[in-house]
Amino acid sequence: MTGGKPAQHAELALLLEVAGTPKPGNVDRERDLADLRFEHFLAGAVGARPGLEAASEGEALGPAILRAVEGMSEQSGGNTQFGALLLLIPLVSATGETSPTPESVTDVVRATTVSDAAAFYRAFDVVDVRVGEPPTDEDGGEVPDVRQGSAAVPAVERAGYTLYDLMEISADTAGGDMVAREWTAGFERSFEVATRIEKDEGPVTDRAARAFLWLLGEQPDSLIVTAHGRERAAAVTERARSLRNADEAEVSSFADDLVEAGVNPGATADVVAAALYIALARGLSV
Amino acid sequence: MTGGKPAQHAELALLLEVAGTPKPGNVDRERDLADLRFEHFLAGAVGARPGLEAASEGEALGPAILRAVEGMSEQSGGNTQFGALLLLIPLVSATGETSPTPESVTDVVRATTVSDAAAFYRAFDVVDVRVGEPPTDEDGGEVPDVRQGSAAVPAVERAGYTLYDLMEISADTAGGDMVAREWTAGFERSFEVATRIEKDEGPVTDRAARAFLWLLGEQPDSLIVTAHGRERAAAVTERARSLRNADEAEVSSFADDLVEAGVNPGATADVVAAALYIALARGLSV
Repeated sequence: MTGGKPAQHAELALLLEVAGTPKPGNVDRERDLADLRFEHFLAGAVGARPGLEAASEGEALGPAILRAVEGMSEQSGGNTQFGALLLLIPLVSATGETSPTPESVTDVVRATTVSDAAAFYRAFDVVDVRVGEPPTDEDGGEVPDVRQGSAAVPAVERAGYTLYDLMEISADTAGGDMVAREWTAGFERSFEVATRIEKDEGPVTDRAARAFLWLLGEQPDSLIVTAHGRERAAAVTERARSLRNADEAEVSSFADDLVEAGVNPGATADVVAAALYIALARGLSV
Repeated sequence: MTGGKPAQHAELALLLEVAGTPKPGNVDRERDLADLRFEHFLAGAVGARPGLEAASEGEALGPAILRAVEGMSEQSGGNTQFGALLLLIPLVSATGETSPTPESVTDVVRATTVSDAAAFYRAFDVVDVRVGEPPTDEDGGEVPDVRQGSAAVPAVERAGYTLYDLMEISADTAGGDMVAREWTAGFERSFEVATRIEKDEGPVTDRAARAFLWLLGEQPDSLIVTAHGRERAAAVTERARSLRNADEAEVSSFADDLVEAGVNPGATADVVAAALYIALARGLSV
């Protein structure tokens, strides 16, 4: 695909991400989880598109995220691409005549308001997202719990947090959320992985799978930290790193182990989806 | 997905169709062909959406088909879903407050004009589609060759063929094109397969694969007839029929044989995509 609009590239990034295989611990072209299947990801990507289009047309980040998450959720698998959309919406919003850059996407996320934060909280009404305990801000104040969804909006508004403020607090938390770290560090990992994908060769879905394994070996996945603790996340990272030059059978065996254990490096997959979008926006063709 | 718009359902139908496996002879979740890969179908579905949206918003069938085919073709695999779009565009166009019916879609295709026929010919400029020799009409006149694309438009206009006229001629030809037969017979097979999918159980992609095998055993695939002759197509139908109660391993072995032999029952896949759309439009959820 060349010359497509940003929303098309973003939707395709979601589809290419889930189609890459083997992608240890995640749903991929060859693996379903018990209640979360490949087809839920297909429907999630298709459903997210109106929100992605809204971002492309200049809608504020919070409402665009809410709309994309609502659309994504119109399938029975639950949360498929929430984290990926939190990365894609600002990237799409930062795409204009030219492809997004670390600077342009940083400008976009820094410009978010309290009303974007409120819409973000409302998105948690729509779908169950696995998150940890609420972090505390630099003054030791407890940030309203996103798991309360819209019920927490008045508290968010009283505290005057913008969506960027919230991401900054989450990024600074021990075991900091990978998506929040992207927001506050110029989408560094996303751009780094995009360049890897561009320099790689062969089918894009294979490149996505290799990029996923590489990133998983670089840093503990924050979704695994939340669900299974730091030690487990570190062990997964170590094994991923040891498999960098392994053949596909060994990687597949790792993939089967993680699926069996219910260990899902979902945050790493979110960053790969963002990286695929950047690469497509910069001209990568399928 | 529930309550989505027709264009979303149509795009999702394309994605669910290609994700079904095993789907003997076609690209599926587990199989790529040499130069035609799963990722090309993902990009084709994403790219087709603006054309599907145009149809949903009332654009005439020919221009909507042309737009969908143009978008579908923005990937390097070539023709991925041309035939499926020829079925989906009228079905989407016939979807309003209620889901499409054999009657409503027949009204839509019968209302096509010479200008729709011209746009259809122009779509052949965009992508290489495997078609047979041009048929002759009932007076023995030779129908302009679609393989000439836009160069044939003046001849089409002189002859005054509507798009429906052209489909009627193709449907009546020996080994008649399955897509053309759907147009002229109230999308009979598409509705029949939709009902099978609705009555089936389990993941929708599995239902799609079973529906594909069933339909392949019902009638020779017209794309196989064009590419390999009637005898080969009949043999494939016979084997598909014999596998109706077989286990997945036997069906997979059939799938591998067809891929190896380069035998691609693409027209059967097109009808399954149309059937998936009808089922989604009638309320099937993923």
